[in-house]
Amino acid sequence: MIRVGSVVLRVDDLPRQTEFWSAALDYVPREGPSDDDFVLLRPRGGVGPNLSLDRHDSAVHLPPRIHLDLYADDQAAEVKRLQALGATEVHWDKRPPDADYIILADPEGNRFCVVDAS
Amino acid sequence: MIRVGSVVLRVDDLPRQTEFWSAALDYVPREGPSDDDFVLLRPRGGVGPNLSLDRHDSAVHLPPRIHLDLYADDQAAEVKRLQALGATEVHWDKRPPDADYIILADPEGNRFCVVDAS
Repeated sequence: MIRVGSVVLRVDDLPRQTEFWSAALDYVPREGPSDDDFVLLRPRGGVGPNLSLDRHDSAVHLPPRIHLDLYADDQAAEVKRLQALGATEVHWDKRPPDADYIILADPEGNRFCVVDAS
Repeated sequence: MIRVGSVVLRVDDLPRQTEFWSAALDYVPREGPSDDDFVLLRPRGGVGPNLSLDRHDSAVHLPPRIHLDLYADDQAAEVKRLQALGATEVHWDKRPPDADYIILADPEGNRFCVVDAS
Protein backbone atom coordinates (compact mmCIF):
# COMPACT_ATOMS: atom_id res chain seq x y z
CA MET A 1 0.00 0.00 0.00
CA ILE A 2 1.27 3.42 -0.97
CA ARG A 3 -0.45 6.78 -1.09
CA VAL A 4 0.18 10.47 -1.66
CA GLY A 5 0.86 11.26 1.99
CA SER A 6 2.17 14.77 1.72
CA VAL A 7 3.04 17.53 -0.68
CA VAL A 8 6.37 18.99 0.37
CA LEU A 9 7.02 22.65 -0.30
CA ARG A 10 10.38 24.24 0.31
CA VAL A 11 10.06 27.66 1.87
CA ASP A 12 12.21 30.60 2.80
CA ASP A 13 10.07 32.11 5.57
CA LEU A 14 8.67 29.20 7.54
CA PRO A 15 6.38 31.17 9.93
CA ARG A 16 4.90 33.21 7.08
CA GLN A 17 4.25 30.21 4.88
CA THR A 18 2.88 28.21 7.81
CA GLU A 19 0.44 31.05 8.51
CA PHE A 20 -0.62 31.37 4.88
CA TRP A 21 -1.10 27.71 4.07
CA SER A 22 -2.76 26.82 7.39
CA ALA A 23 -5.38 29.47 6.78
CA ALA A 24 -5.66 28.80 3.05
CA LEU A 25 -6.44 25.10 3.46
CA ASP A 26 -7.79 25.03 7.05
CA TYR A 27 -4.85 22.84 8.03
CA VAL A 28 -3.29 22.51 11.48
CA PRO A 29 0.23 21.59 12.58
CA ARG A 30 0.71 17.97 13.47
CA GLU A 31 1.09 17.28 17.17
CA GLY A 32 4.47 16.12 18.32
CA PRO A 33 8.00 17.41 18.42
CA SER A 34 8.53 20.70 16.65
CA ASP A 35 11.41 21.65 14.45
CA ASP A 36 12.65 25.10 13.53
CA ASP A 37 13.06 24.08 9.91
CA PHE A 38 10.05 21.89 9.24
CA VAL A 39 6.30 22.02 9.82
CA LEU A 40 3.89 19.29 8.85
CA LEU A 41 0.36 20.57 8.34
CA ARG A 42 -2.58 18.21 8.22
CA PRO A 43 -6.22 18.75 7.29
CA ARG A 44 -8.21 19.81 10.34
CA GLY A 45 -10.99 17.53 9.12
CA GLY A 46 -8.58 14.66 8.54
CA VAL A 47 -9.28 14.24 4.82
CA GLY A 48 -6.65 14.95 2.21
CA PRO A 49 -2.88 14.91 1.92
CA ASN A 50 -0.65 16.67 4.41
CA LEU A 51 1.36 19.72 3.44
CA SER A 52 4.96 19.77 4.61
CA LEU A 53 6.83 23.04 4.74
CA ASP A 54 10.57 22.59 4.66
CA ARG A 55 12.92 25.52 5.17
CA HIS A 56 15.62 25.02 2.56
CA ASP A 57 17.20 27.07 -0.16
CA SER A 58 15.36 26.37 -3.39
CA ALA A 59 14.64 28.91 -6.06
CA VAL A 60 11.19 29.38 -7.57
CA HIS A 61 11.31 28.41 -11.23
CA LEU A 62 8.63 29.43 -13.69
CA PRO A 63 6.70 27.73 -15.02
CA PRO A 64 6.72 25.33 -12.10
CA ARG A 65 7.22 21.64 -12.82
CA ILE A 66 4.69 20.78 -10.12
CA HIS A 67 1.85 22.86 -8.78
CA LEU A 68 -1.32 22.38 -6.76
CA ASP A 69 -4.84 22.63 -8.04
CA LEU A 70 -7.19 23.61 -5.25
CA TYR A 71 -10.80 22.66 -5.92
CA ALA A 72 -13.29 25.28 -4.75
CA ASP A 73 -17.06 25.16 -4.42
CA ASP A 74 -17.21 28.95 -4.66
CA GLN A 75 -14.24 29.95 -6.78
CA ALA A 76 -14.74 33.72 -6.64
CA ALA A 77 -15.15 33.76 -2.88
CA GLU A 78 -12.13 31.55 -2.34
CA VAL A 79 -9.92 33.66 -4.58
CA LYS A 80 -10.94 36.74 -2.65
CA ARG A 81 -10.27 35.00 0.65
CA LEU A 82 -6.85 33.78 -0.49
CA GLN A 83 -5.91 37.24 -1.73
CA ALA A 84 -6.80 38.66 1.68
CA LEU A 85 -4.41 36.10 3.18
CA GLY A 86 -1.55 37.27 0.97
CA ALA A 87 -1.95 35.50 -2.37
CA THR A 88 -1.68 37.46 -5.60
CA GLU A 89 -3.31 36.76 -8.93
CA VAL A 90 -1.09 35.73 -11.82
CA HIS A 91 -2.09 36.76 -15.32
CA TRP A 92 -0.91 34.17 -17.81
CA ASP A 93 -1.11 35.04 -21.48
CA LYS A 94 -1.91 31.45 -22.48
CA ARG A 95 -4.91 31.09 -20.17
CA PRO A 96 -8.07 30.50 -22.23
CA PRO A 97 -10.82 33.02 -21.48
CA ASP A 98 -13.20 30.22 -20.50
CA ALA A 99 -10.69 28.45 -18.25
CA ASP A 100 -12.12 26.90 -15.12
CA TYR A 101 -9.05 27.93 -13.12
CA ILE A 102 -7.62 31.13 -11.71
CA ILE A 103 -3.89 31.27 -11.11
CA LEU A 104 -2.62 32.63 -7.82
CA ALA A 105 0.80 32.83 -6.21
CA ASP A 106 1.47 32.32 -2.52
CA PRO A 107 3.51 34.89 -0.54
CA GLU A 108 6.75 33.37 -1.86
CA GLY A 109 5.67 33.28 -5.48
CA ASN A 110 4.67 29.61 -5.71
CA ARG A 111 1.92 29.39 -8.25
CA PHE A 112 -1.22 27.34 -7.70
CA CYS A 113 -4.65 27.21 -9.26
CA VAL A 114 -8.09 27.63 -7.81
CA VAL A 115 -10.37 25.42 -9.88
CA ASP A 116 -14.12 25.88 -10.11
CA ALA A 117 -15.45 22.58 -8.75
CA SER A 118 -19.03 23.68 -8.29
CA MET B 1 -14.78 24.99 0.95
CA ILE B 2 -11.47 24.40 -0.70
CA ARG B 3 -9.26 21.34 -0.85
CA VAL B 4 -6.13 19.97 -2.47
CA GLY B 5 -7.87 18.51 -5.49
CA SER B 6 -4.95 17.61 -7.67
CA VAL B 7 -1.20 17.70 -7.90
CA VAL B 8 -0.27 18.84 -11.39
CA LEU B 9 2.93 17.55 -12.93
CA ARG B 10 4.23 18.85 -16.23
CA VAL B 11 5.60 16.06 -18.37
CA ASP B 12 7.46 15.58 -21.61
CA ASP B 13 6.34 12.05 -22.49
CA LEU B 14 2.66 11.85 -21.55
CA PRO B 15 2.07 8.11 -22.28
CA ARG B 16 5.21 7.08 -20.39
CA GLN B 17 4.41 9.20 -17.38
CA THR B 18 0.76 8.09 -17.42
CA GLU B 19 1.91 4.48 -17.37
CA PHE B 20 4.39 5.03 -14.58
CA TRP B 21 2.22 7.07 -12.25
CA SER B 22 -0.93 4.99 -12.80
CA ALA B 23 0.95 1.88 -11.76
CA ALA B 24 2.92 3.61 -9.00
CA LEU B 25 -0.15 4.93 -7.19
CA ASP B 26 -2.83 2.52 -8.46
CA TYR B 27 -4.58 5.44 -10.13
CA VAL B 28 -6.87 5.32 -13.18
CA PRO B 29 -7.67 7.92 -15.84
CA ARG B 30 -10.80 9.92 -15.21
CA GLU B 31 -13.73 9.07 -17.44
CA GLY B 32 -14.74 11.66 -19.96
CA PRO B 33 -13.25 13.45 -22.91
CA SER B 34 -9.60 12.70 -23.51
CA ASP B 35 -6.95 15.14 -24.52
CA ASP B 36 -3.62 14.51 -26.20
CA ASP B 37 -1.87 16.88 -23.85
CA PHE B 38 -3.52 16.21 -20.52
CA VAL B 39 -4.45 13.21 -18.41
CA LEU B 40 -6.19 13.39 -15.06
CA LEU B 41 -5.54 10.34 -12.90
CA ARG B 42 -7.65 9.60 -9.86
CA PRO B 43 -7.26 7.04 -7.07
CA ARG B 44 -8.90 3.75 -8.04
CA GLY B 45 -10.18 3.51 -4.47
CA GLY B 46 -11.46 7.07 -4.56
CA VAL B 47 -9.38 8.36 -1.64
CA GLY B 48 -6.65 10.95 -2.10
CA PRO B 49 -5.85 13.80 -4.44
CA ASN B 50 -5.87 13.42 -8.19
CA LEU B 51 -2.68 13.57 -10.21
CA SER B 52 -2.81 15.65 -13.37
CA LEU B 53 -0.21 15.12 -16.07
CA ASP B 54 0.16 18.10 -18.34
CA ARG B 55 2.35 17.96 -21.43
CA HIS B 56 4.20 21.26 -21.44
CA ASP B 57 7.77 22.35 -21.68
CA SER B 58 9.10 22.75 -18.18
CA ALA B 59 12.60 21.93 -17.09
CA VAL B 60 13.35 19.81 -14.05
CA HIS B 61 15.13 21.95 -11.47
CA LEU B 62 17.05 20.45 -8.58
CA PRO B 63 16.39 20.59 -5.76
CA PRO B 64 12.70 20.72 -6.57
CA ARG B 65 10.62 23.44 -4.95
CA ILE B 66 7.75 20.97 -4.55
CA HIS B 67 7.87 17.21 -4.32
CA LEU B 68 5.62 14.38 -3.23
CA ASP B 69 6.06 12.22 -0.17
CA LEU B 70 4.47 8.82 -0.73
CA TYR B 71 3.63 7.03 2.51
CA ALA B 72 4.30 3.29 2.37
CA ASP B 73 3.35 0.52 4.76
CA ASP B 74 6.21 -1.61 3.45
CA GLN B 75 8.86 0.85 2.34
CA ALA B 76 11.42 -1.66 1.04
CA ALA B 77 8.85 -3.55 -1.02
CA GLU B 78 7.40 -0.35 -2.47
CA VAL B 79 10.81 1.00 -3.44
CA LYS B 80 11.59 -2.27 -5.20
CA ARG B 81 8.22 -2.19 -6.98
CA LEU B 82 8.68 1.43 -8.09
CA GLN B 83 12.17 0.70 -9.37
CA ALA B 84 10.76 -2.14 -11.46
CA LEU B 85 8.31 0.38 -12.95
CA GLY B 86 11.13 2.70 -13.97
CA ALA B 87 12.03 4.77 -10.93
CA THR B 88 15.64 5.22 -9.93
CA GLU B 89 17.10 5.80 -6.49
CA VAL B 90 18.68 9.18 -5.79
CA HIS B 91 21.60 9.32 -3.40
CA TRP B 92 21.63 12.64 -1.59
CA ASP B 93 24.71 13.50 0.45
CA LYS B 94 22.67 15.34 3.09
CA ARG B 95 20.33 12.44 3.84
CA PRO B 96 20.74 11.34 7.49
CA PRO B 97 21.57 7.64 7.79
CA ASP B 98 18.48 7.06 9.95
CA ALA B 99 16.14 8.96 7.63
CA ASP B 100 12.65 7.51 7.31
CA TYR B 101 12.58 8.32 3.59
CA ILE B 102 14.18 6.99 0.45
CA ILE B 103 14.52 9.35 -2.50
CA LEU B 104 13.51 8.15 -5.94
CA ALA B 105 13.16 9.84 -9.31
CA ASP B 106 10.43 9.08 -11.82
CA PRO B 107 11.28 8.32 -15.49
CA GLU B 108 11.63 12.04 -16.22
CA GLY B 109 13.81 12.80 -13.22
CA ASN B 110 11.16 14.22 -10.90
CA ARG B 111 12.23 13.40 -7.39
CA PHE B 112 9.86 12.07 -4.78
CA CYS B 113 10.22 10.31 -1.45
CA VAL B 114 8.95 6.99 -0.20
CA VAL B 115 8.36 7.44 3.52
CA ASP B 116 8.19 4.59 6.00
CA ALA B 117 4.67 4.89 7.41
CA SER B 118 4.55 1.49 9.07
